[in-house]
Amino acid sequence: MKINDDKKFIELDHGGGGYKSWELVKEIRQILKFKGQWQNCEDDAAIYDLGKGKLVFTTDAFIVDPIFFPGGDIGKIAMCGTINDLSVMGARPIGISLSIVMEEGFLKKDFLQIIKSINKVSRQSGVPVVTGDTKVTGKGKIDKIAVTTAGVGLARKIISNNGVKAGDFIIASGDLGVHTIALLSKRFNYRTKIRSDSKPLNKELAEVGEYLNAAKDPTRGGLAANLVEMAEKAKVKIILEEKLLPYKKETVALTELLGIDIFSLASEGRFIASVSKKNTKLVLNILKKYNKEAKIIGRAEKMDSRLRGNDKNEHENNKKNYIYLKTNLGTLRPIEMPKGKLIPRIC
Amino acid sequence: MKINDDKKFIELDHGGGGYKSWELVKEIRQILKFKGQWQNCEDDAAIYDLGKGKLVFTTDAFIVDPIFFPGGDIGKIAMCGTINDLSVMGARPIGISLSIVMEEGFLKKDFLQIIKSINKVSRQSGVPVVTGDTKVTGKGKIDKIAVTTAGVGLARKIISNNGVKAGDFIIASGDLGVHTIALLSKRFNYRTKIRSDSKPLNKELAEVGEYLNAAKDPTRGGLAANLVEMAEKAKVKIILEEKLLPYKKETVALTELLGIDIFSLASEGRFIASVSKKNTKLVLNILKKYNKEAKIIGRAEKMDSRLRGNDKNEHENNKKNYIYLKTNLGTLRPIEMPKGKLIPRIC
Repeated sequence: MKINDDKKFIELDHGGGGYKSWELVKEIRQILKFKGQWQNCEDDAAIYDLGKGKLVFTTDAFIVDPIFFPGGDIGKIAMCGTINDLSVMGARPIGISLSIVMEEGFLKKDFLQIIKSINKVSRQSGVPVVTGDTKVTGKGKIDKIAVTTAGVGLARKIISNNGVKAGDFIIASGDLGVHTIALLSKRFNYRTKIRSDSKPLNKELAEVGEYLNAAKDPTRGGLAANLVEMAEKAKVKIILEEKLLPYKKETVALTELLGIDIFSLASEGRFIASVSKKNTKLVLNILKKYNKEAKIIGRAEKMDSRLRGNDKNEHENNKKNYIYLKTNLGTLRPIEMPKGKLIPRIC
Repeated sequence: MKINDDKKFIELDHGGGGYKSWELVKEIRQILKFKGQWQNCEDDAAIYDLGKGKLVFTTDAFIVDPIFFPGGDIGKIAMCGTINDLSVMGARPIGISLSIVMEEGFLKKDFLQIIKSINKVSRQSGVPVVTGDTKVTGKGKIDKIAVTTAGVGLARKIISNNGVKAGDFIIASGDLGVHTIALLSKRFNYRTKIRSDSKPLNKELAEVGEYLNAAKDPTRGGLAANLVEMAEKAKVKIILEEKLLPYKKETVALTELLGIDIFSLASEGRFIASVSKKNTKLVLNILKKYNKEAKIIGRAEKMDSRLRGNDKNEHENNKKNYIYLKTNLGTLRPIEMPKGKLIPRIC
């Protein structure tokens, strides 16, 4: 079977969070065009106008290897992923649905440990699991367990991912990428003190949400994919400062060792945001109560006029030009949306 | 590995929709007790009071073999399952989330056919798919594809599954069980004209909802599991009439051939309801516009007083006593909640 024929077969990269994922999602959207009264169906979550406030709705599927890793497990990241997708939209998450598919012979104690871990996030965040479904499939018909969460939230004001304004500071709510590093360390039996950064962000985002022009949680695809999406939607250029990059030394060392693009590392308990100059200090002061590593990592600038058109093949032609890294030597290096190939799937 | 040790390992029956599923769900609920402001988390969907009306939220995971079968595919039943869970609660489904996990090498054309089938149900029912997630796992790490849908709906008045009243008629919105029969026929290469009954029920339930005392869609676990749940919650006895049973001749013949309990067959486009004597004719007249087979199948009666207590082991001790079949000979035969073992998983 010619498995690398992406016209005929689904490939791993179609789920990698990079360019190929983006292409497949585009194909799905072309079929499922009908959206009724919903808006923003291309963001992390969809929005429905309730008259008094908005209903926000999102979902995530999790298949992760290993299912238990330093700092978390598949249950914890499923909860955090969905709570955070709602929170970065400016919504207060009010309820989670939990669907589990597992194989016959899965250890009952592992299953219960995952449920307990889900409960811990639920209590910590104040977001209950209110409905669910559990299916069991034959031995070998699934790799242990898949966990899918969906979530609903209520919002007064939506934080979009397209609101970046030229002149804004780009901030990170903490150091990035350690979720991927924790997972890979476990997978390769590499000894490190790094633990997954997975955590629910609803409380910190409830405090700072009103001051953010745009926000996103850099999960699949990491900083690169998420900043490219934000910059492209807002038609701005984002310049990151190498000396301000929010990565731990160990993260940098391990990505170099493994040959992984550091900008594609995922976090499951961090967000990036675009904030006006005026509000940046206030926002960072609040965020530092939750994580001392919260900081400015770059700024947004006007896009060169030649790139502001509505080129149909924007992604293909111009993607190099949305995000730049200003290196310590003062040069500008473009950062691309990950192609998929190099990103180990970690959620 | 001693796989039939249900204290240590997850078994197929834990997802079968019968008694063992019920036990596992009970264990999950004991951990995930915190429900915030949500109610009815033990019904097909959970309810959140929005002040003006209620938000209803549900989820279903689908792994089905074969993924394409006479009258539908995994995408169609995922959509119908979630739309119907909201509809039987008296909610107007407003949006669906779609999560897909598939294996590397899955045929792109099969994938797109599933998405098109989802779109067809979406258009037919008027319920849009508004958010989603797509993950790809390594070859052999999942049996082709798993589809998980969650759904949100809005309701003014909830139809509970515990509202059966002694004196009510029990009705079925059409003949039952053909979804299971269609699937099994395909699995065993048995030639039949039967096609899955899967269809969205939101329109018919919007018309009759206000006249129903209780409703449920008899999917996993079939008529038996669903009636036992309804009767047990309402502390009533339900007597089904053998001569009124809503099964096609071919369904009866095939279940006898395969040795399957006919009362455990699932439908994906039918509901059963409890209706006051006064409203029954009106309801059936409306339902017959959608399906000529809609009819009375039995009635609810007062439970014997000795069974009305709150015995902790109700399920275990008294389950035989909730549902009876009045045979054509005039005898009463108890119908039990399926144990799981004999129910082929069909969703």
